[in-house]
Amino acid sequence: MNILRQNASRSTRLFKHTKRATVRRSSAVVGQSCPPNRSAPPSFPCVDAHAAREARLQQGFQDAISATQPSSASSSSGPEPPYARPSPRSCKIYHHSEPLELVYSESLRSFDIAYETWGTLSAKKDNVILLHTGLSASSHAASTEANPSEGWWEKFIGPGKALDTNQFYIICTNVLGGCYGSTGPSSFRPTDSSPDGAPQVRERYGTGFPVLSIFDMVRAQFKLLDGLGIDEVYASVGSSMGAMQSLAAGWLFPERVGKVVSISGTARSSPSAIAMRFAQRSVLMADPNWNKGFYYDGLPPHTGMKLARQIATITYRSGPEWDLRFGRKLRPSGELPARNSPASGPRIPALCPDFLIETYLDHQGEQFCLKYDANSLIYISKAMDLFDMTLSSLESLNLTPRGPRSAPPPVPPSHAALPCPDHYRSQLSHSKSHPPPNNPPVHLPDLAEGLRPLSRTPVLILGVQSDILFPVEQQREVADALRITGNDMVSYFELGGVWGHDTFLLDVMNVGGAIRGFLS
Amino acid sequence: MNILRQNASRSTRLFKHTKRATVRRSSAVVGQSCPPNRSAPPSFPCVDAHAAREARLQQGFQDAISATQPSSASSSSGPEPPYARPSPRSCKIYHHSEPLELVYSESLRSFDIAYETWGTLSAKKDNVILLHTGLSASSHAASTEANPSEGWWEKFIGPGKALDTNQFYIICTNVLGGCYGSTGPSSFRPTDSSPDGAPQVRERYGTGFPVLSIFDMVRAQFKLLDGLGIDEVYASVGSSMGAMQSLAAGWLFPERVGKVVSISGTARSSPSAIAMRFAQRSVLMADPNWNKGFYYDGLPPHTGMKLARQIATITYRSGPEWDLRFGRKLRPSGELPARNSPASGPRIPALCPDFLIETYLDHQGEQFCLKYDANSLIYISKAMDLFDMTLSSLESLNLTPRGPRSAPPPVPPSHAALPCPDHYRSQLSHSKSHPPPNNPPVHLPDLAEGLRPLSRTPVLILGVQSDILFPVEQQREVADALRITGNDMVSYFELGGVWGHDTFLLDVMNVGGAIRGFLS
Repeated sequence: MNILRQNASRSTRLFKHTKRATVRRSSAVVGQSCPPNRSAPPSFPCVDAHAAREARLQQGFQDAISATQPSSASSSSGPEPPYARPSPRSCKIYHHSEPLELVYSESLRSFDIAYETWGTLSAKKDNVILLHTGLSASSHAASTEANPSEGWWEKFIGPGKALDTNQFYIICTNVLGGCYGSTGPSSFRPTDSSPDGAPQVRERYGTGFPVLSIFDMVRAQFKLLDGLGIDEVYASVGSSMGAMQSLAAGWLFPERVGKVVSISGTARSSPSAIAMRFAQRSVLMADPNWNKGFYYDGLPPHTGMKLARQIATITYRSGPEWDLRFGRKLRPSGELPARNSPASGPRIPALCPDFLIETYLDHQGEQFCLKYDANSLIYISKAMDLFDMTLSSLESLNLTPRGPRSAPPPVPPSHAALPCPDHYRSQLSHSKSHPPPNNPPVHLPDLAEGLRPLSRTPVLILGVQSDILFPVEQQREVADALRITGNDMVSYFELGGVWGHDTFLLDVMNVGGAIRGFLS
Repeated sequence: MNILRQNASRSTRLFKHTKRATVRRSSAVVGQSCPPNRSAPPSFPCVDAHAAREARLQQGFQDAISATQPSSASSSSGPEPPYARPSPRSCKIYHHSEPLELVYSESLRSFDIAYETWGTLSAKKDNVILLHTGLSASSHAASTEANPSEGWWEKFIGPGKALDTNQFYIICTNVLGGCYGSTGPSSFRPTDSSPDGAPQVRERYGTGFPVLSIFDMVRAQFKLLDGLGIDEVYASVGSSMGAMQSLAAGWLFPERVGKVVSISGTARSSPSAIAMRFAQRSVLMADPNWNKGFYYDGLPPHTGMKLARQIATITYRSGPEWDLRFGRKLRPSGELPARNSPASGPRIPALCPDFLIETYLDHQGEQFCLKYDANSLIYISKAMDLFDMTLSSLESLNLTPRGPRSAPPPVPPSHAALPCPDHYRSQLSHSKSHPPPNNPPVHLPDLAEGLRPLSRTPVLILGVQSDILFPVEQQREVADALRITGNDMVSYFELGGVWGHDTFLLDVMNVGGAIRGFLS
């Protein structure tokens, strides 16, 4: 994946040499920059970008090594990887020193959960909203005094917003397995104090980290709530993977979760969603820098991460949006002969990004590739694949369903300010009633049995018709399954529009309005 | 992408060493094989597979080098790459020694087109069907005496089949830019005879090959027809990229093409289809073996090809099919503790392929990665992206539309055998009438202007509702655009079913039936 790497064997080095000679001899018509002289060697800036990034990181890495050399006890504790150096570390860290039981393997000996809060906890502690993130988000859902930078749900959290800080105390965590302060594959393993007091060699988990379940993530969150002395949350709210956590929270703790909001999620990952995440993991794991997950004392698999993010971005948006936004437009370029100019002939297309949709995907990948830990991506996306709330699956994991909620639905906590206008509801112009399914999926009864612990919990299911990752069929399926359990407190909305899966980040009016209505 | 490669710099080698040490220290719970002893190092057979393939190829390559060494004049003419060694070379080769004008760049000095035929050419040469392939198919559409192995459209070609060899003479070519006998990036450049008679160094085009247009491919096919003395084809038939070629054939040569069949194609590639092909090219071009397209004297980018094919396969099938076929089933494994066995605890999931959908994609990638030339994939998929029959696009490429066909639609040639039963038509149970569009795309009038040369050609448009690569909206768009030109000979079918884009390879009854009806 980078030109700094060379085959070790002598014979391969020879081939490389021969290849370079071939390159020099060839004429080029395919480079991203199209020189008038067509006998110049082909230029592939999009490929060179990987090598340039590698060289830049290598230099930074060596500088960091030199800087830390005198004080470093062990090279394996090396410099911090780039994603571990975000803007001001503004989150709080809850440390849990007892073991956390896990679904698939032995327990975690101890763990940290990073979290941030907005609003004021009421004296009765009855106004808590537990907000769950999608795959790669941090706990920084909205700006705070400690960290004024914009959060990933900035427009949804604040006074008078969908999650109204005049009314609610909102807690958002970085998910277990993540890399923004919570324990994950990039964390150091806990060490025993050595009997002779000698310094211990600290090592990161890497792929020695246990495979996680969405249920593990939620249990870790509730250890945090225990630590904060919070018995019950008014509502559990999440989108995408956060919606899975939200459903799992209501399922694991029916008495502790008053209401559940699930936006663009699912209760059972489909094979096509698994396929799309598998493709991302495959390109990532094929990057030699990944090194089977032990790259923390070297360079991260930035090329694999870029390629994985390009694929992910395709699943986050929708074709209709791209039609409107990019169409078939090409990137502008001053160097190129003007398109449509009969004198100079048609512009020669590049094999590197040339259409605007290609430069968009390239940019998304480039932006992301050093921001997030590769192993966190692998573990968390795998946890999403494994999520399945059918009874047969839950039983196979020894997850014993509890009885449904016995308490009545919670009463909204009082406002700190004036009540908010109700105009959101009337603006849900895209919502439509949900017809009974013509061809219910075969697993629907099994899913309904699995969801029975949620049969007395008010649940909001919201989906988007242009979502290709969590399609509306899956939203309908969750709503149907809940109704089969006898739950008559299921609110169901489908949104139109062209934003696909990412609608939950963008459509403040409709997504925010549905949440406000449901929480009030 | 393979463990044979190592960073050249001393410092990086040090990190590699440290990494290995870390690997040994770590406990594992994520390997594909899950040993009872969890402190064993993590095992990643799916990653090791890339390195094992590389080592196997390297060995074969060195053996081939040794074998050819005495007679080889130049190392750059090295051994044939694996995809150039298919089963018996049964196709005919048409060599065109004159230059072929290209849309985007200078002409090709000369070229070859590989082709195969089925049926008998009538005395009047009025029974020809020109069959176009999808991206990666060879000319071997059906078994022949020379090559009895099954072709890619075996069930559609033969006596009494959709393309009836009792009636028609069918010609299928390997596309220009391909790697199955036609000239493409893996071909040797034509050489001038040197004045002193010294042997010339032969070199392959690699990425020195010119960017192709679908129109170039079709023009090359018509040079073949010229060579065969065929003035007019009864019908031009194609699916997927073949449908693009089929429309382009009718557009370029309205008088020479009697009827056009376009199955699961488009007249204007959408940004989302471009995005999905871009993702494939990106992972391929990031493989260091790709070496900017000059890998022919080394090892091919087999890992990049495998990853690209995994992504492509996702676009070829549909979620509903995978739901039925794989659901959430896991690969069977005798070594693993039985799932659902409370005594042994839940089966520990692997980060390598574990769900059947994952093993399916892995297998598809593995099967393909040495069968096809990487540069052919890049050039041909780019040609698909570039395809756009709106008038503004055609004009920008200096493609001047001809007048529509003046001759009446062709009369079906007589049968060599009894007429076939007409039961196919009545079995088109999934077909439904095509309503006028509620929200016609903004480019529809431009597309209609572009398609005007087809306004007097009978055209069959067939699409599949579960196709995510060439969605039905695009099929409707082509049919609508043709109708806007005043063409009252547009047959339009939509098929249901769960096979997605690949339906054209599988649904003999409905796809075959629609074709038979249209050709008769």
